[in-house]
Amino acid sequence: MNRLYHYPLSPFSRKVRLTLAEKKLEVELVEERYWEKDPEFLRRNPAGRVPILKYGNRLLAESNAICEYLEELHPTPPLLPRLPEERYEVRRLVAWFDDKFHKEVTSKLLGERVFRKVMAAGPPESANVKAGARAIKEHLDYMAALLDQRRWLAGNDMTLADFAAAAHLSCLDYISDVDWHRSEVVKDWYAKIKSRPAFRSLLADQIPSFLPPPHYADLDF
Amino acid sequence: MNRLYHYPLSPFSRKVRLTLAEKKLEVELVEERYWEKDPEFLRRNPAGRVPILKYGNRLLAESNAICEYLEELHPTPPLLPRLPEERYEVRRLVAWFDDKFHKEVTSKLLGERVFRKVMAAGPPESANVKAGARAIKEHLDYMAALLDQRRWLAGNDMTLADFAAAAHLSCLDYISDVDWHRSEVVKDWYAKIKSRPAFRSLLADQIPSFLPPPHYADLDF
Repeated sequence: MNRLYHYPLSPFSRKVRLTLAEKKLEVELVEERYWEKDPEFLRRNPAGRVPILKYGNRLLAESNAICEYLEELHPTPPLLPRLPEERYEVRRLVAWFDDKFHKEVTSKLLGERVFRKVMAAGPPESANVKAGARAIKEHLDYMAALLDQRRWLAGNDMTLADFAAAAHLSCLDYISDVDWHRSEVVKDWYAKIKSRPAFRSLLADQIPSFLPPPHYADLDF
Repeated sequence: MNRLYHYPLSPFSRKVRLTLAEKKLEVELVEERYWEKDPEFLRRNPAGRVPILKYGNRLLAESNAICEYLEELHPTPPLLPRLPEERYEVRRLVAWFDDKFHKEVTSKLLGERVFRKVMAAGPPESANVKAGARAIKEHLDYMAALLDQRRWLAGNDMTLADFAAAAHLSCLDYISDVDWHRSEVVKDWYAKIKSRPAFRSLLADQIPSFLPPPHYADLDF
């Protein structure tokens, strides 16, 4: 059985979980409190972070390398388009969310509000929370600008770019940090992706002492 | 003519420059002081950073998306192997250097010693410089462990993983922050990659008020 070492509110773990589920690859989920640097976990991944996928007898690290590998081994249903120009746009947006959005928004909001607490690293820094709350607005507007012209973020088909974005936004939605009233197209996009069977396991996540709001798992929110 | 908006000591720009040169794609280099947030530059790239490649009439951002795109359009000479397992390993290592190495080493050494000065952001934080100097040792040892078993970082052929690593190390070598005595195999690997024609343009870089040490451009160092 394949096994994913993950943390429920890690957007990088969620992107891989969505990819595995969309491709109907079964996986046993093992929650990993990676910041506790368990020596056994560090042996599995010298980079010391989640997700790690045990796939057959290989241990795979780095969420993008994992997703591209799964896409090459299991091309159906496709999560990357066929034309180089379209594939470029998917990869650009995956980097946008996993790098820029993560730095400006996820690390500021989820990092301060949740990870500081579970890692016992002190109270949230309010300046960071404020900066994250400001930045998410610009990002939602950027997504709206894309979705005004496309059915999905990178084009007319659902791709890894949608999974990367939804992985971050679903973590933030778990702590009620997404203002879904800001853009109708973004809300419609999220309702569409949230209702996919691949999303179910994410909507069932529960972190002790951080219960999600009722709308989190409501497909019609 | 294709055009690359870059900064000479940006490792992400250097990775793209190496890829373009290795594939013999001519490009005009335009130096971009991206932190000055020139409105014209921000229009070209809403993410506000280098490199940006003007390729035909398209503007491309995000160094990995660009390199994968160039690889798909110009597969010869290959910078990604053919088997999914081998491609995975290249992508894992590109992420290792561009993400982990960048955060732990490049941003700490180059960020403090050079970028703070050129961006007029105050004197270097010595705690960061110390942390970077400590971390680079572990990374060089990790590279040595890989190179003890492989001709190149990801396997028996030179790939994007070597370019990602060499892009970071060459920037650090420019400020004499790489201890080449630490590992013979790493030094041999760097001598091999440094002597490629694709590397020439990097070795000719000069940043005013930061002249490189004599060994920087010496192929036999």
